[in-house]
Amino acid sequence: MARLRAKPKATPDDLAFGVHACERALGEGLAKRLLHAEGASNRRVAALVEQATAQGLPVEAVEGDRLAELTGGGVHQGVLVRLRRLPATPIPRKVTGPSLAIVLDGVTDPQNTGAVLRVAVATGAEAVVLPPRRGVALTPGVHRASAGLSFLAPVAAPQNLARAISLLKEAGYWVVAASPGDGAEDATAFDWPDCTALVLGGEERGVSRLLNEASDFRVALPMDGRVESLNVGVACGALAYLWRARWPG
Amino acid sequence: MARLRAKPKATPDDLAFGVHACERALGEGLAKRLLHAEGASNRRVAALVEQATAQGLPVEAVEGDRLAELTGGGVHQGVLVRLRRLPATPIPRKVTGPSLAIVLDGVTDPQNTGAVLRVAVATGAEAVVLPPRRGVALTPGVHRASAGLSFLAPVAAPQNLARAISLLKEAGYWVVAASPGDGAEDATAFDWPDCTALVLGGEERGVSRLLNEASDFRVALPMDGRVESLNVGVACGALAYLWRARWPG
Repeated sequence: MARLRAKPKATPDDLAFGVHACERALGEGLAKRLLHAEGASNRRVAALVEQATAQGLPVEAVEGDRLAELTGGGVHQGVLVRLRRLPATPIPRKVTGPSLAIVLDGVTDPQNTGAVLRVAVATGAEAVVLPPRRGVALTPGVHRASAGLSFLAPVAAPQNLARAISLLKEAGYWVVAASPGDGAEDATAFDWPDCTALVLGGEERGVSRLLNEASDFRVALPMDGRVESLNVGVACGALAYLWRARWPG
Repeated sequence: MARLRAKPKATPDDLAFGVHACERALGEGLAKRLLHAEGASNRRVAALVEQATAQGLPVEAVEGDRLAELTGGGVHQGVLVRLRRLPATPIPRKVTGPSLAIVLDGVTDPQNTGAVLRVAVATGAEAVVLPPRRGVALTPGVHRASAGLSFLAPVAAPQNLARAISLLKEAGYWVVAASPGDGAEDATAFDWPDCTALVLGGEERGVSRLLNEASDFRVALPMDGRVESLNVGVACGALAYLWRARWPG
């Protein structure tokens, strides 16, 4: 059967799409070019075009199909930006006073990663450790899902998660793995350390054995036995605010 | 231009799709018929076919396109069930001892509603008040997003939210609206009442003025000023577990 249209090109990693994510990228000076759907008359996209122009960035009107292609069919709302190289935040060398770090171990769903980044910025986390996948820590889908808070989050992206945990411990963090099962303390009754590195596991397998063994504590949210788990973003929100309740900012 | 295919039929409301949601519907005896993609060889779908057959339900193998059509392009994983009429849980008449109710005011996104239902079941909420939209409280998208926990959640679906709030108060609940702004208490420092009806507002507009005025307390999660809000499911997780931390089950 003949192809009706060209095979879509691979979607690039160095872009953000959707109004919120583009707003944040421009606001943080992380955009280097803006593309918008030609002929569209969205007031918020027009404001982004103006902002990009004021920053001296190249601005290009393209067909909507081109945006769909570049975003892999994402909800682009008629606008995308190409990004500069995103700055990586180093893992803190020494923490004093209450501090939260969040470590994601095997979380692959961009919605969940995005939700975690929103919680991280909301609760003032000092580091979010996010191992890169195929060389990329933050994908366009994550920027979108976090409403662009990915550009504000202090993201560290080490190749080696075990090494990152060591550095966090050296810096003064206690490592707390969100990991149900034998030996896990009830997270709602847990005496949260002032400097907590909270480790959250992926959707399917949870926290890996390696990181469970490297952790100082294991906690679990108490829940009805019929619920296998909460999604990672929701669990992160609950745990981060339980920590915050013990250590007000 | 000629239509290349028939316009899809409206997607029915009385169905659940995806493995998890179908599993729960069958488990709760709420399915009345099962449709699965013919020729597929998914082990978990096969188990569902077996379970439906054992329950004496009609089982039908259909083309994948038919499933796509019925689910409005949802991620059906090759299986859907038609549902019996879902039981509605009445609002409790009288509560004693710690009890949580969750009230959704204007939440329209099925992902968010689904996430809230998961939290509700996880934390043992006694009621989830969910006003029907166009006559329907729980849509196929909500069943899917909640991984079928919508079938376990104690959902009350009154036409009139203000009346539901009155009933909750009469039953002994204190009404706590999650509503940032002047007069809101810090949710992490709040002295949660033992019987709390937590009101969560929609994505855009938050809790309505009517329900804010009807509430006994207003609380907000403390957050970095650059974050406009968390998504409703994440906020619900954080608030429900802050309540649970004060009133262990």
